[in-house]
Amino acid sequence: MKKQKPLILVTNDDGITAPGIVALVEVMKTLGEVVVVAPDKPQSGMGHAITINSTLRLHRTKTHGIAEEYSCSGTPVDCVKFAINKVLKRKPDLCVSGINHGSNMSINVIYSGTMSAAVEGAIEGIPSIGFSLCDFSIDADFVPAKKIIKTIVENVLKNSLPKDVCLNVNIPKLKYNEIAGIKICRQARASWVEELDERHDPSGRAYYWLTGKFENFEKGKKDTDVWAVENNFVSVVPVQFDLTAHKAIKEIQNDWKL
Amino acid sequence: MKKQKPLILVTNDDGITAPGIVALVEVMKTLGEVVVVAPDKPQSGMGHAITINSTLRLHRTKTHGIAEEYSCSGTPVDCVKFAINKVLKRKPDLCVSGINHGSNMSINVIYSGTMSAAVEGAIEGIPSIGFSLCDFSIDADFVPAKKIIKTIVENVLKNSLPKDVCLNVNIPKLKYNEIAGIKICRQARASWVEELDERHDPSGRAYYWLTGKFENFEKGKKDTDVWAVENNFVSVVPVQFDLTAHKAIKEIQNDWKL
Repeated sequence: MKKQKPLILVTNDDGITAPGIVALVEVMKTLGEVVVVAPDKPQSGMGHAITINSTLRLHRTKTHGIAEEYSCSGTPVDCVKFAINKVLKRKPDLCVSGINHGSNMSINVIYSGTMSAAVEGAIEGIPSIGFSLCDFSIDADFVPAKKIIKTIVENVLKNSLPKDVCLNVNIPKLKYNEIAGIKICRQARASWVEELDERHDPSGRAYYWLTGKFENFEKGKKDTDVWAVENNFVSVVPVQFDLTAHKAIKEIQNDWKL
Repeated sequence: MKKQKPLILVTNDDGITAPGIVALVEVMKTLGEVVVVAPDKPQSGMGHAITINSTLRLHRTKTHGIAEEYSCSGTPVDCVKFAINKVLKRKPDLCVSGINHGSNMSINVIYSGTMSAAVEGAIEGIPSIGFSLCDFSIDADFVPAKKIIKTIVENVLKNSLPKDVCLNVNIPKLKYNEIAGIKICRQARASWVEELDERHDPSGRAYYWLTGKFENFEKGKKDTDVWAVENNFVSVVPVQFDLTAHKAIKEIQNDWKL
């Protein structure tokens, strides 16, 4: 009996027209049957948002003409929900998100639409991976990333992933032979020092752009994703959707004397 | 020397006009100096979304006339960023979010704007709590919730919280004397069985509403938030923003033979 090819769902947060998703589809087509369900416009920074206060649209498209492609008016997480519940004939064997144009290391995992799509895949019990290339340029070179992604996806298809875990993969902006290796690591403790860039509209009223500076509180910690990428490694962080701070349960029980 | 009153930031995801935020402000005013920065419209299900592709507005308002109040055009997380970086004179001693109209138990922590605001507070090093009342009604009775919230906030102001941890508090829809107690617990493993409710617009084209049924995979597990609330307890789950699945790091290292 012929073994069924893996069914691979591809999504992203930069929108269906982004070069990053084309690169990801090209790799996935060498590994399985590919269906794309991606946002119809950029959805960066959407985190785990879902659309419940307005309606959604789904359209079959031939944007790239390289796979079965659908665009969705919602968030990256909405796209995964549409794929599973409306588009795909069966539960996919893999859900991949990206390739994001820009890094999603450290605390950015929580703001990232790319990663939230992967987390949603994991919630649905699908081995899921978010891929990001640390290069914002529309002309970013995805060739080295594609080789890395193929290696990682082959490993995941072969070994699957631990239960309730997806992967956050960040790829440094380097030539393939400059990449030091793939490093399984943890999310660095970091945050954004925000600035609200105040401007004034033609009527003189204030409006703001959210901007900021990334601050890594764990500089030099070699087991973190930020260290890995800064030292030419591809970082792979296993990510979970159980947000319980298990160790804190006892501590609070003791403090509160309930 | 007179001790400074705690500075308390109040936000929510139902928007500044919601009755739940008024109830929360009323309790907080008995405990400290209150500043409200809340969305100018409902932002349920926005998760940890931030606004980076469009501009933001912030307006001083007198919606309720009971505190220093600002409305923000962004998400709950944007509101916390505005409060810290633009509105407040100093870092607040506490950030509270809610009272949400409806539950945020289990996996809903990840979709909830209410909880994401609290998580953002925690990322900023502020003791933070999200409160939800398991009653969607605009006429919900917040009186029992207010007593519970006062007890919990007094505990947090006295003992603070473990580092990098905020609280997800869900309050059952009960009279005060029917509440069995406050239970520190963990997030139940659950997910949504989604349906995409397909309808047709006047031109005959399909559109969809995201809807679904909550499915708890850990029925009867007494250490979970869902069990607690179903058994008349207030559930308190300590929540962390380190999403690393630490136990999975070794497992993947072994599997992949990198």
